[in-house]
Amino acid sequence: MLKIAIVGASGYTGLELIRILHCHPEVAVTCLTSEQNAGKRISDVFQTLRGRCDIVLENLEPVRVAEKADIIFTALPHKAAMEVVPTFLKLGKKVIDLSADYRLSDPAVYGAWYEPHINPANLKKAVYGLPEIRRAKIKGAKLIANPGCYPTSIILGMAPLLKAGMLDLDSIIADSASGVTGAGRSAKVDSLYSEVNEGYRAYGAGGVHRHTPEIEQELSLLAGKTVRLTFTPHLAPMDRGILSTIYGMPKNSTTTGKLVKLYTEFYAGEPFVRVLPRGSLPSTSFVRGSNFCDIAPLVDDRTGRIIVISAIDNLVKGASGQAVQNMNLMCGFPETMGLEGLALFP
Amino acid sequence: MLKIAIVGASGYTGLELIRILHCHPEVAVTCLTSEQNAGKRISDVFQTLRGRCDIVLENLEPVRVAEKADIIFTALPHKAAMEVVPTFLKLGKKVIDLSADYRLSDPAVYGAWYEPHINPANLKKAVYGLPEIRRAKIKGAKLIANPGCYPTSIILGMAPLLKAGMLDLDSIIADSASGVTGAGRSAKVDSLYSEVNEGYRAYGAGGVHRHTPEIEQELSLLAGKTVRLTFTPHLAPMDRGILSTIYGMPKNSTTTGKLVKLYTEFYAGEPFVRVLPRGSLPSTSFVRGSNFCDIAPLVDDRTGRIIVISAIDNLVKGASGQAVQNMNLMCGFPETMGLEGLALFP
Amino acid sequence: MLKIAIVGASGYTGLELIRILHCHPEVAVTCLTSEQNAGKRISDVFQTLRGRCDIVLENLEPVRVAEKADIIFTALPHKAAMEVVPTFLKLGKKVIDLSADYRLSDPAVYGAWYEPHINPANLKKAVYGLPEIRRAKIKGAKLIANPGCYPTSIILGMAPLLKAGMLDLDSIIADSASGVTGAGRSAKVDSLYSEVNEGYRAYGAGGVHRHTPEIEQELSLLAGKTVRLTFTPHLAPMDRGILSTIYGMPKNSTTTGKLVKLYTEFYAGEPFVRVLPRGSLPSTSFVRGSNFCDIAPLVDDRTGRIIVISAIDNLVKGASGQAVQNMNLMCGFPETMGLEGLALFP
Amino acid sequence: MLKIAIVGASGYTGLELIRILHCHPEVAVTCLTSEQNAGKRISDVFQTLRGRCDIVLENLEPVRVAEKADIIFTALPHKAAMEVVPTFLKLGKKVIDLSADYRLSDPAVYGAWYEPHINPANLKKAVYGLPEIRRAKIKGAKLIANPGCYPTSIILGMAPLLKAGMLDLDSIIADSASGVTGAGRSAKVDSLYSEVNEGYRAYGAGGVHRHTPEIEQELSLLAGKTVRLTFTPHLAPMDRGILSTIYGMPKNSTTTGKLVKLYTEFYAGEPFVRVLPRGSLPSTSFVRGSNFCDIAPLVDDRTGRIIVISAIDNLVKGASGQAVQNMNLMCGFPETMGLEGLALFP
Repeated sequence: MLKIAIVGASGYTGLELIRILHCHPEVAVTCLTSEQNAGKRISDVFQTLRGRCDIVLENLEPVRVAEKADIIFTALPHKAAMEVVPTFLKLGKKVIDLSADYRLSDPAVYGAWYEPHINPANLKKAVYGLPEIRRAKIKGAKLIANPGCYPTSIILGMAPLLKAGMLDLDSIIADSASGVTGAGRSAKVDSLYSEVNEGYRAYGAGGVHRHTPEIEQELSLLAGKTVRLTFTPHLAPMDRGILSTIYGMPKNSTTTGKLVKLYTEFYAGEPFVRVLPRGSLPSTSFVRGSNFCDIAPLVDDRTGRIIVISAIDNLVKGASGQAVQNMNLMCGFPETMGLEGLALFP
Repeated sequence: MLKIAIVGASGYTGLELIRILHCHPEVAVTCLTSEQNAGKRISDVFQTLRGRCDIVLENLEPVRVAEKADIIFTALPHKAAMEVVPTFLKLGKKVIDLSADYRLSDPAVYGAWYEPHINPANLKKAVYGLPEIRRAKIKGAKLIANPGCYPTSIILGMAPLLKAGMLDLDSIIADSASGVTGAGRSAKVDSLYSEVNEGYRAYGAGGVHRHTPEIEQELSLLAGKTVRLTFTPHLAPMDRGILSTIYGMPKNSTTTGKLVKLYTEFYAGEPFVRVLPRGSLPSTSFVRGSNFCDIAPLVDDRTGRIIVISAIDNLVKGASGQAVQNMNLMCGFPETMGLEGLALFP
Repeated sequence: MLKIAIVGASGYTGLELIRILHCHPEVAVTCLTSEQNAGKRISDVFQTLRGRCDIVLENLEPVRVAEKADIIFTALPHKAAMEVVPTFLKLGKKVIDLSADYRLSDPAVYGAWYEPHINPANLKKAVYGLPEIRRAKIKGAKLIANPGCYPTSIILGMAPLLKAGMLDLDSIIADSASGVTGAGRSAKVDSLYSEVNEGYRAYGAGGVHRHTPEIEQELSLLAGKTVRLTFTPHLAPMDRGILSTIYGMPKNSTTTGKLVKLYTEFYAGEPFVRVLPRGSLPSTSFVRGSNFCDIAPLVDDRTGRIIVISAIDNLVKGASGQAVQNMNLMCGFPETMGLEGLALFP
Repeated sequence: MLKIAIVGASGYTGLELIRILHCHPEVAVTCLTSEQNAGKRISDVFQTLRGRCDIVLENLEPVRVAEKADIIFTALPHKAAMEVVPTFLKLGKKVIDLSADYRLSDPAVYGAWYEPHINPANLKKAVYGLPEIRRAKIKGAKLIANPGCYPTSIILGMAPLLKAGMLDLDSIIADSASGVTGAGRSAKVDSLYSEVNEGYRAYGAGGVHRHTPEIEQELSLLAGKTVRLTFTPHLAPMDRGILSTIYGMPKNSTTTGKLVKLYTEFYAGEPFVRVLPRGSLPSTSFVRGSNFCDIAPLVDDRTGRIIVISAIDNLVKGASGQAVQNMNLMCGFPETMGLEGLALFP
């Protein structure tokens, strides 16, 4: 049994890690930290855990945490993560970081979108943890930069087209909708039930959302050329889920049938990517609570434009589930271990 | 007091007409029809009306309906509308048709997207009832083709740009999300609470939604040239509202500030269009129950692309409210009469 | 035109007052206060108001507020209300207080459930503003204690039975469910969308909710004897609405038919109470946005127990709508003025 | 590996059985039936299953089904179940029936609430499958009458009090709220998203809901005397969950502390019942997707009344999860096998 610490356990991604790891046969959660709730049982913060995980939350003292764990998940806000990750690495621990701190390989880009990076030394060791794109490197990694939720849905949706060199790279637009858990568990008026309910709205429109450089970095690597896209996130009145509807012009005209074939072959053997048959479209409700990414590529025959629609659960494939998938790869466990649960529908 | 008949009163747009007209000081609803519920009081179908509108629903016999009304709203499925509208017109009644039957000026286009048109003779008399674009003609019309919900949000969002000739006409993409009332009140598994809740999904993707030709007809008229767009509707887990996020490349680079100025001037004096200041974005919840269309135009500076976001209540500005606005224009009432109610938020 | 000030305008009941009064032909809102948002336009706090009510919020300086208004609505937390109401009264203004501060006629009871009362002198002048029970006194009042939301639904549900002396007074149980707006607009984790959604739960169970003494005071007055009840509030995942299901044993066995007759006669002529016919039951969605209270009384024939179900919109008949109804009575306006809007359904 | 057939697989309880059994290591689903969808893959009916369970649905031919399975779950409407269960039993199969057909031990009671019973012979063999009350009998059963959702929440909530003989048996009232999945997956206007959303309402009030005799049968057995209760079900705008708030007068006054102790001892060792500590109250969202029943007993000190609040997921502990728990007991598997998943929150 490997021992697991979750740093920043009283947010939604922390809770989701506990939920998933609870059914994982090869690991045991041994340490949970929370600055706000230190001293309380995690099951007093989240009643769902009562009787199954009643660990007492502690303050984040990196050395003490490292003593209790073989693998550490950091579910902290950006900046807070890179303040502690170096210590964990120095003490020989494997780290899976769910923050943005190690996702951008160029510290100058990080600086432009967030703030000055304080741990550039470890950036090179970090592997961007999208198993479908970078499985081999993940297996040998000590530090995983776990991808953002929007990027996961968009990169998986675009990878086959970009690898095939089929797209006009100036034409990409990603229009995404997310559930409210994406905003985290902090008390903000904007996230109140009565502010969110019955409201569908854009935010961070015009290329200002911080996931933009992360998406572009990965799309550029796939394309072998610099990609700039327009990315518009929206908030939908639901707990979980991200659906991205992605648009692009092909260099040469194509058909839905050819695209479905391309995607099916590209993702053949992938345990968590489902390419839908022509005529089926994804829904966030069909992946809710599961680690799947459902993808439907198609062509708008009237304009020739390609449309790719992809759906994930933002807290699972978009965060904690993908983190466990990465852990499995790093530790030599079967990749799907602990992640076999089907979506909870309805 | 003008007398009003609502044909097809037991659907959501019929109910919404009753709700709005209840507070209109110059008209009285005198006749309601419903094939399914004939013989019942409308207030037994919709308990919200009890004690305020208890009219008994009757079968649709066009001559009898016409005898009871000066103005007739047809809130019927397509085809059913054009089966009765000619009779109403022949008997000298003003008709506001909420179906698709008179929206497409070319019967061949109607035939290609719906079925053969059985009343092409009246197509030329029909005025597409978007007051912000065609107010003068509406005032003199006998037959209004009340616009569809998606088209209303997209046409109002695009009109200033197209009129100004600023856009590359091949670049337009409209990505829209709608509440569930857009699917009407018929009993379908797909519209059940538990099927819709927590689900955000595309439908009719790839240029197959029937609002596509209606949008293109009006955008083409505004541009003075043929426009083809990619239009992707989505279903969001909420009752009401449509938000369209529309993308297009400008011929020459522009700025958010210039766009806000352009839109503000274009819609100056319009009672129901609100151009938002830079930094504010629309939400369906901010127009819920009201006749407003809120619009925010902006530029994605990194790609140069224009993004316009517009929000309406699909049952009000997208259907029954706009129908009443058209009635006011046709009858010489103040345009905002009965439509002054603010959004119900939360 | 009477001039209206709303003190504490940036909460949900403040917003709802603005929404309702916007369509009232005899008054104009002239002053809005908010400590948190002073200096901002109210339409920057609530985008629904843009272009229709753009008043700048000011700090609460009682004398200055009084200078600008004939009638003052205080939509403040308890205690904050009684700190300013005396000044308004002294300056000759009519006050409608939406807080709890003047609802309990006995300051000792207030002290036991809230904190020491600092303005007992005005308690005797205050009239508990439930028009269906106390219309005559309201007409002559200078200070209205606007009833709580739960109390409104329960008192209106019980009044006919208690007046008729039909109930065993030890047997009353009120089981109520409320939408989330009842918790106000403050940023609390418990009110976040993702905490509330898909959750139905009790709170304040066991006779500890502060509306308990208010309910008992009014039920006791109606019964002419002391009434103690068990009251359990619940939170339901919705914005608005309160539905109370109230249980009691009759002294002598009765029937649903007799109860419907009793209630229909008791509330004959009431503009905002609808007694439903046998077989119809209320729903919060049928009164949403309206000032109605829908009531269905019935008998459980197997146990002989009486069940009364009543539904209101907590922000309208449970707060701001009732406050306007009281204003109409105090000012000699038609009682329904500004309150004729039908429910927004769906 | 035992082979499992699910008869009536395209409803929500059928889907939930598939979801739960997918992670059960000792069984394999081998046969699914559906009259409506025969010939389709189950994963075309429920996209959540794609790639994990793609069995083709077949018509219900009892002999053929029995050949393919060791254990048969019948997830059919009442009456349809008892038409096929006798054949399954005759062929030596173990049956877990999720309908109401074998829950009422007296066929006359069944006849009074449903219709004439056509298989009274097997009623005596049927064991009412509530493991916390009847574990030993379940282990040896051939036919399980799987309890209803409301009854599960109410019986578990009341059992300790009734066994202890503490309650005035004439005083029991159960006020329950359910999510919409309780109404099944059939296309009905009443279950449409827009009809349910923002609505909280009672239905079947006055002792007419068919779960009433089932609840009374079991409460009477626990009490050793005939129990009549008032039971009012409500519909809440959410997918899943039942919360019951149950009221009763104790024969002698008691305290919350004593009740928590009584319940904690009564349910000591139960894997799926969690008695909450004083001050914590259940929510449907805390058990969503899990097999837990959370219970909080307390006393309203002002009236002396006992209040017990219990919450389950209606599709799990209220249906399919409990059915699997029963299967585990019948087959000698660990009782919690396949049911260890924690609630999906948010």
